[in-house]
Amino acid sequence: MKVFDIAPVKFADGKMMILDQTQLPGEEIYIEARTKEDVWEAIYHLKVRGAPAIGVAAGYGLYISVRGYEGGDMAGFRKLVGETSEYLNSSRPTAVNLSWALGRMERVLDEAIKAGEKSTHLTVEEAKKLMLAEAEKIRMEDEESCKAMGEYGLSLLKPGMGILTHCNAGTIATAKYGTCLAPIYLGQERGYNFRVFADETRPLLQGARLTSWELYKSGIDVTLICDNMASIVMKNGWIDAVVVGCDRMAANGDGANKIGTSGVAILAKEYGIPFYMFVPTSTIDLNTRTGDDIPIELRKGEEIYRMWYEKNMAPEGVKTYNPSFDVTDHKYITAVITEKGVVRPPYDVNLRKLKDE
Amino acid sequence: MKVFDIAPVKFADGKMMILDQTQLPGEEIYIEARTKEDVWEAIYHLKVRGAPAIGVAAGYGLYISVRGYEGGDMAGFRKLVGETSEYLNSSRPTAVNLSWALGRMERVLDEAIKAGEKSTHLTVEEAKKLMLAEAEKIRMEDEESCKAMGEYGLSLLKPGMGILTHCNAGTIATAKYGTCLAPIYLGQERGYNFRVFADETRPLLQGARLTSWELYKSGIDVTLICDNMASIVMKNGWIDAVVVGCDRMAANGDGANKIGTSGVAILAKEYGIPFYMFVPTSTIDLNTRTGDDIPIELRKGEEIYRMWYEKNMAPEGVKTYNPSFDVTDHKYITAVITEKGVVRPPYDVNLRKLKDE
Repeated sequence: MKVFDIAPVKFADGKMMILDQTQLPGEEIYIEARTKEDVWEAIYHLKVRGAPAIGVAAGYGLYISVRGYEGGDMAGFRKLVGETSEYLNSSRPTAVNLSWALGRMERVLDEAIKAGEKSTHLTVEEAKKLMLAEAEKIRMEDEESCKAMGEYGLSLLKPGMGILTHCNAGTIATAKYGTCLAPIYLGQERGYNFRVFADETRPLLQGARLTSWELYKSGIDVTLICDNMASIVMKNGWIDAVVVGCDRMAANGDGANKIGTSGVAILAKEYGIPFYMFVPTSTIDLNTRTGDDIPIELRKGEEIYRMWYEKNMAPEGVKTYNPSFDVTDHKYITAVITEKGVVRPPYDVNLRKLKDE
Repeated sequence: MKVFDIAPVKFADGKMMILDQTQLPGEEIYIEARTKEDVWEAIYHLKVRGAPAIGVAAGYGLYISVRGYEGGDMAGFRKLVGETSEYLNSSRPTAVNLSWALGRMERVLDEAIKAGEKSTHLTVEEAKKLMLAEAEKIRMEDEESCKAMGEYGLSLLKPGMGILTHCNAGTIATAKYGTCLAPIYLGQERGYNFRVFADETRPLLQGARLTSWELYKSGIDVTLICDNMASIVMKNGWIDAVVVGCDRMAANGDGANKIGTSGVAILAKEYGIPFYMFVPTSTIDLNTRTGDDIPIELRKGEEIYRMWYEKNMAPEGVKTYNPSFDVTDHKYITAVITEKGVVRPPYDVNLRKLKDE
């Protein structure tokens, strides 16, 4: 049973289609990216978002931007690729996956050109095919990574369980499947019939706009709640596990994730519910000793009392505190799920062991 | 130092003024109630809300509705009072304080008429004065009750403390001072310089629209946060006490209050922060054995994903769960503050003792 056909970036019949996430949940619109400007604009305006998904968009985006090159002059083609890569990279300079994917595309091309100098000559048409293949590979690798996390996650869950999630670490933030939502999709394909509760995730409402949308679209039993209802649904006995993503994990297992995650973790502990954090190994930073060393981005108060609304929902001039993330102490994390396996405490020892493997 | 001049209902120079709370926090508009229709409309459309505040509005409202009666016919006057009382009572039939206050006004009138039959004759003009005096008394008694709760609450707090609150149990829900915000106002008058953090309180945003407004207006240092930020502000070491109101307390000390309160209580316990619930003795229901016996009102999902917004913030048709209240287990409540004193555990024994006094 195929659960869903959603992906943030699709490539088929030579067309690159990008799901415009800014229009969710009201409208599901795939826009075709035909030019480098289209790709740049989609990344810049957050039509495609989520680190892995941006990487995928960069790969295909670079390919479709240069495939129209005419003639057989490889030096000219290489120059165009370099310029286009630089241009696309300017769409969101702080997104690591963007420059990583573009760099990888260029490297593959250079290696083939170098190899071609020694043996058979590499034609421009062959180079284009090579780039498309590499873009496909970037997408496939992320999909495989998510799937592996999903399998490991699923090994911790049982059919019919109630599962709470916070924010969106789902399919549209990655190539496919997501990180913490991956076991839910895999379970759905196997008839697990999970009952999922999605925190709306204030102030940016990723849980309402994105998570509840992609789960609902996929036919999964999802119930939207406000963040402050996590306690009552746990008390009601409706939650058997909590699954969340992670933006950065320190060497001791402290994990930074969307604001509110640490509160959910404490409630889960109090109610005796396992709390699982889904963390690609690339997100584990052994150079960060503890969560105290992770900087927390502060954003504007307008996101709390003005954004989304017609008029202010708090008095003009009121002070606000609007951190994007919080750090969940490792003592509240039952297990860390990576694409390489499930890590249990003590995290300071076992995360290092995993990274060394 | 007089901290604030806000009250949900004011009566001065013969004029009854009602703060239109539906216009907050954008506009602070006091509307004059001149007729019984004005009063009815204000209560019906929630321009005045909060059980004690509705009682105050009913008292003055009945008076201003009948004071225009001309002539000296007491039987005619009494008939008008009865009809007007019945009319006003239909504005919000389930509000206990509404019928309670109207009944009290009628009772006082009847007692004076009865006494007048035995001795000096009661004139209609005297009857009107009596009714105004009773309306004043209803307001004063609630103000005194709130002030007493404030004093008891303040005895638990120290200058400079950081205090977190949830929802609105403030001055505009009562005659003045509020319940859980009363110690903050009294402390402000005495230079305590509290730093208050107000949860916005989804989905109806009472914390943002009402609490942050009334505290900000009163010159109190208030910071608005999203509900899911309570954990990080506690972890940051910014919170020394949590104060919340209560809608109904069971005999064992379990307290129902605005949705999200139980989560805040669990976080407070985990971070070692005292959690104080402010409960007028009229709100303690010894006939309710535990929190499990308190029915929880469920409201429409539109409040979560459509209300306040221009368009839906979740996919059309998504399931929701939207309880108005949750029950905080008595084990998380450090002390219960009433107008008669501070109650400590064991609550099953000490709440009964207090009510028996």
